[in-house]
Amino acid sequence: MSPKITTELLRQLRQVMKSSRYVAEPIQAYIVPSGDAHQSEYIAPCDCRRAFISGFDGSAGTAIITEQKAAMWTDGRYFLQAAQQMDSNWTLMKMGLKDTPTQEDWLVSVLPEGSKVGVDPFIIPADQWKRMSKALKSAGHVLVPVKENLIDAICVDRPQRPCKPLMTLDLSYTGIGWKEKIAALRAKMVERKVLWLVVTALDEVAWLFNLRGSDVEYNPVFFAYAVIGTDTIRLFVSGDRMADPSTREHLLLDSALEAEFKIQVVPYESVLTELQAICMGLSPKEKVWLSDKASYALTEAIPKAHRYLTPYTPICIAKAVKNRAETEGMRRAHIKDAVALCELFNWLEKEVPKGSVTEISAADKAEEFRSQQNGFVDLSFATISSTGPNGAIIHYKPVPETNRALSGNEIYLLDSGAQYKDGTTDVTRTMHFGTPSAYEKECFTYVLKGHIAVSAAIFPNGTKGHLLDSFARSALWDCGLDYLHGTGHGVGCFLNVHEGPCGISYKTFADEPLEAGMIVSDEPGYYEDESFGIRIENVVLVIPAKTKYNFSNRGSLTFEPLTLVPIQTKMISIPLLTQKECDWVNDYHRKCREVIGAELKSQGRHEALQWLIRETEPITKMH
Amino acid sequence: MSPKITTELLRQLRQVMKSSRYVAEPIQAYIVPSGDAHQSEYIAPCDCRRAFISGFDGSAGTAIITEQKAAMWTDGRYFLQAAQQMDSNWTLMKMGLKDTPTQEDWLVSVLPEGSKVGVDPFIIPADQWKRMSKALKSAGHVLVPVKENLIDAICVDRPQRPCKPLMTLDLSYTGIGWKEKIAALRAKMVERKVLWLVVTALDEVAWLFNLRGSDVEYNPVFFAYAVIGTDTIRLFVSGDRMADPSTREHLLLDSALEAEFKIQVVPYESVLTELQAICMGLSPKEKVWLSDKASYALTEAIPKAHRYLTPYTPICIAKAVKNRAETEGMRRAHIKDAVALCELFNWLEKEVPKGSVTEISAADKAEEFRSQQNGFVDLSFATISSTGPNGAIIHYKPVPETNRALSGNEIYLLDSGAQYKDGTTDVTRTMHFGTPSAYEKECFTYVLKGHIAVSAAIFPNGTKGHLLDSFARSALWDCGLDYLHGTGHGVGCFLNVHEGPCGISYKTFADEPLEAGMIVSDEPGYYEDESFGIRIENVVLVIPAKTKYNFSNRGSLTFEPLTLVPIQTKMISIPLLTQKECDWVNDYHRKCREVIGAELKSQGRHEALQWLIRETEPITKMH
Repeated sequence: MSPKITTELLRQLRQVMKSSRYVAEPIQAYIVPSGDAHQSEYIAPCDCRRAFISGFDGSAGTAIITEQKAAMWTDGRYFLQAAQQMDSNWTLMKMGLKDTPTQEDWLVSVLPEGSKVGVDPFIIPADQWKRMSKALKSAGHVLVPVKENLIDAICVDRPQRPCKPLMTLDLSYTGIGWKEKIAALRAKMVERKVLWLVVTALDEVAWLFNLRGSDVEYNPVFFAYAVIGTDTIRLFVSGDRMADPSTREHLLLDSALEAEFKIQVVPYESVLTELQAICMGLSPKEKVWLSDKASYALTEAIPKAHRYLTPYTPICIAKAVKNRAETEGMRRAHIKDAVALCELFNWLEKEVPKGSVTEISAADKAEEFRSQQNGFVDLSFATISSTGPNGAIIHYKPVPETNRALSGNEIYLLDSGAQYKDGTTDVTRTMHFGTPSAYEKECFTYVLKGHIAVSAAIFPNGTKGHLLDSFARSALWDCGLDYLHGTGHGVGCFLNVHEGPCGISYKTFADEPLEAGMIVSDEPGYYEDESFGIRIENVVLVIPAKTKYNFSNRGSLTFEPLTLVPIQTKMISIPLLTQKECDWVNDYHRKCREVIGAELKSQGRHEALQWLIRETEPITKMH
Repeated sequence: MSPKITTELLRQLRQVMKSSRYVAEPIQAYIVPSGDAHQSEYIAPCDCRRAFISGFDGSAGTAIITEQKAAMWTDGRYFLQAAQQMDSNWTLMKMGLKDTPTQEDWLVSVLPEGSKVGVDPFIIPADQWKRMSKALKSAGHVLVPVKENLIDAICVDRPQRPCKPLMTLDLSYTGIGWKEKIAALRAKMVERKVLWLVVTALDEVAWLFNLRGSDVEYNPVFFAYAVIGTDTIRLFVSGDRMADPSTREHLLLDSALEAEFKIQVVPYESVLTELQAICMGLSPKEKVWLSDKASYALTEAIPKAHRYLTPYTPICIAKAVKNRAETEGMRRAHIKDAVALCELFNWLEKEVPKGSVTEISAADKAEEFRSQQNGFVDLSFATISSTGPNGAIIHYKPVPETNRALSGNEIYLLDSGAQYKDGTTDVTRTMHFGTPSAYEKECFTYVLKGHIAVSAAIFPNGTKGHLLDSFARSALWDCGLDYLHGTGHGVGCFLNVHEGPCGISYKTFADEPLEAGMIVSDEPGYYEDESFGIRIENVVLVIPAKTKYNFSNRGSLTFEPLTLVPIQTKMISIPLLTQKECDWVNDYHRKCREVIGAELKSQGRHEALQWLIRETEPITKMH
């Protein structure tokens, strides 16, 4: 992978940073955050501004360009990738390491006295604006909103904002109709005494209206905002999206309807002016509810006295707790996904020895098998298909320059998933097609022990996910090993593969208590730079646990794996497992064999079935 | 324990809340925080305002009195005690339970429109003021500082603020002289570009100057503030404390000295006016460093533009990492403490069957044995000596009304510690002097498994304590059990038994990363209301761990128990332990026998030595 040459682009950017056409006064630094106006993690090409200016296209990273310097902050998943994709104009700031300065501290250390730092107010979340603004102010600088995006200003062929057709989801998928969701939401608004709620996250709009889109790759969402009042609904969408008869019928746009469920369709671009108009009409004490992660621009549109900010909207929290229809859909999706992976791994076992399979062709084959499944829509993220040293790049995506052939001498890591109309999958398996070394098996086994420790954990109702994170690391820690990413993230139901507000991470922000019905991933790993990567990931459902006692009548929770794909027993150093852990592996494989075996049989995939049966043979611990 | 009758006191308080003698305008609510002007956890009698108004005298709790209601917020350690000590005028707000409102939410729900809420600005920490003020403001109320404390106003016989003689500590105890400490502190100030540092916490003043006092029971501190400039030192103390020649000599008050180490002694009461005067002389951009937990009054004295607030002062962090002299002192203190406890338990085993030992007499006997040890100064907190149902009151202190006889039928829990000139101890043992039930043994064993899981944990450098908390709970969680307190707190060296900035708790505030040299407690428990309490507590030192590998050259840490008191093996259900856990118990007991045995022998305490040898017999797991 050769880095993007950014010298000329940075020169142009530094020019517009001083141009009165864009800024009232010259700015000495410009911040390019990762997201779009909806603070999305995955973004449309028109919003890939940070990748455009720096070359680094991972899913998380913030660029800051001053008159002399350019720096990129990203986390442990992307240290290697960012280093490879950026040229020497850029300094990589490794977040989470002790000596890495925060963006604020770095700015303060490099800026000349009394500097102005600019940022697009639509892209920066209000909470980040606040923190940054405060830090700069206390050092004598000032953070200023720059209305026209300066990256767009220097980008000559910026793609258009996508506006693709919508898909409607009926009750068999969603379990709850959109009117019911709006009614429940209004009940929450009454509880909190707010009159309005502004929905800015794309997956929240999609979930609320039981609609899906394809504006953003891998994420079945569409560009939209919604503003919910106590008896009005405004949906901000572009173009002729509402022309489609099935969408019109789904949203009852042409039906005689109780006034409070009548949806006003408003152009996407007018959200700011409409919100300002709403705020003009507010009486004292009337409040507008908004996530504190919404953009600074929208937050500022609501006068401070009228703002009601919370880390999560009630939609985010309701969406996280899956209902029966959603849970059943997720189960179906994971069965289909497992069928595709059994086919893939069976195929790989035969093809890899021939030397003709590469990371890219393996990823393509995985997509091919998935696309044969009923209700397949798209992948849920860019497939991470990596062998040998590429496996150590945590969020690696194979490209022709890095593409490596799979072989019997290296570990192969496949982290992949799909969007089915029923649900979203995300699974990682680490395989060896030859004979793994003792050290590779040792590391794999520590990761497996961590995976099992989380998956089998029993914990009280109300526990936050971060309290489970060290269960996943304990076996690695005992030997002085670790991994530089969280252990799990929330997973949407035919929605974003990463969603809040729950997860399992040593980072303690973004962490609502776990509840039955929530769905998260369990994915510890171990990565040895320039050598190999190991990760074992299942998507798991939070379910009530039966325990011997019940302290304070609080109830207990545990996890049920939804992912049912064999874990390669060849990679396990069995003496390192406890008897309990052996039993867990055997129980898990028994369930894979039963559930996925039946589906493989009914789909007539006999060879993959034989592979599954072989791969789910019980392991035995010698005494 | 009968509750304090507070009807008349509350009537008087509500009167002064409306009296123009104390408040410019009537206030509709008055907040009585737990601490003193130094935000101390343990406070002098003159500062026990919350206990005076409510009867509840636990170490943590905030009272709020409105015109109609009175409510008390406290945490899980004190639910039972607070319920017993308060009369029906009071509503107990159980913090940490899901349905308990925050103080802010509760105030907003009960106050009439446009209310004024008063609080003593010297007692409320600035961060709490800020949160409370913001919440009240957004609901149309206002938080106002009430300069004269309203509890003092209705308290007819308020004790005087103590002003007891000081003790100086030489280098053999402190390892570092006070001039060196000041120099290191100034280096930190230069690093952060601050000109002044205000020291408000009593233990920080004591540590900085290598002085100790006895103004507050159990905590060897004295009422003082310090303000450190780049070339000045102001020490705010009352009365004639500085008249003592040894103190004068220790502080070099009469010596020819470099100007920057010359200590100006200033009256305790003048801290606010001195600080205001300092701030008057500041140039723009000159900063004053203060903990964000310092009082609102002192924080407000520093104009906002000059404030540099951090959760911890550099003194707090430096103090937490014990140097070699301090670590060795802590070891000596724990050996002496273990000798006292071996004597006690040996005595109890003989005396309890006679029926004459009570919770109070056992606590007195523990103090007696401790006071026989060299360098004994005081207890480090009120001894928790509790048997049977009293054990379930987590911070129980026996009083004549509740005093219970120890017997062979009930579990006995002793949580106690002392201040020695060498160091501070804090140890809990749970014993049975008859035959414990299978259920009691089961619960004890889960607690022990949690204790061992933390004590034996290996974790990377830079890990925060909260990530270890669930190790302590895992065995309990598996059976649906839990305990409603954190797992560990920082421990001072001949200083406060509870100190920041590290600890082991599911609560994630107040949590600096663990480093070698830090000292914390490891004290999981299990409490069955109206039945029994179990807790196993050691004080442990953070030490480097040797591991097989060393990821990213980060280094690993683990704990070494400083407490060396046998854990009663009779209470262990051995089949529930793993072989590793058995080995831990046997290794621990071998060390107790070696180290404490040698000391018992050299002190000629032969009977206690026999007891120790018996109690440290290895346990064996049947296969």
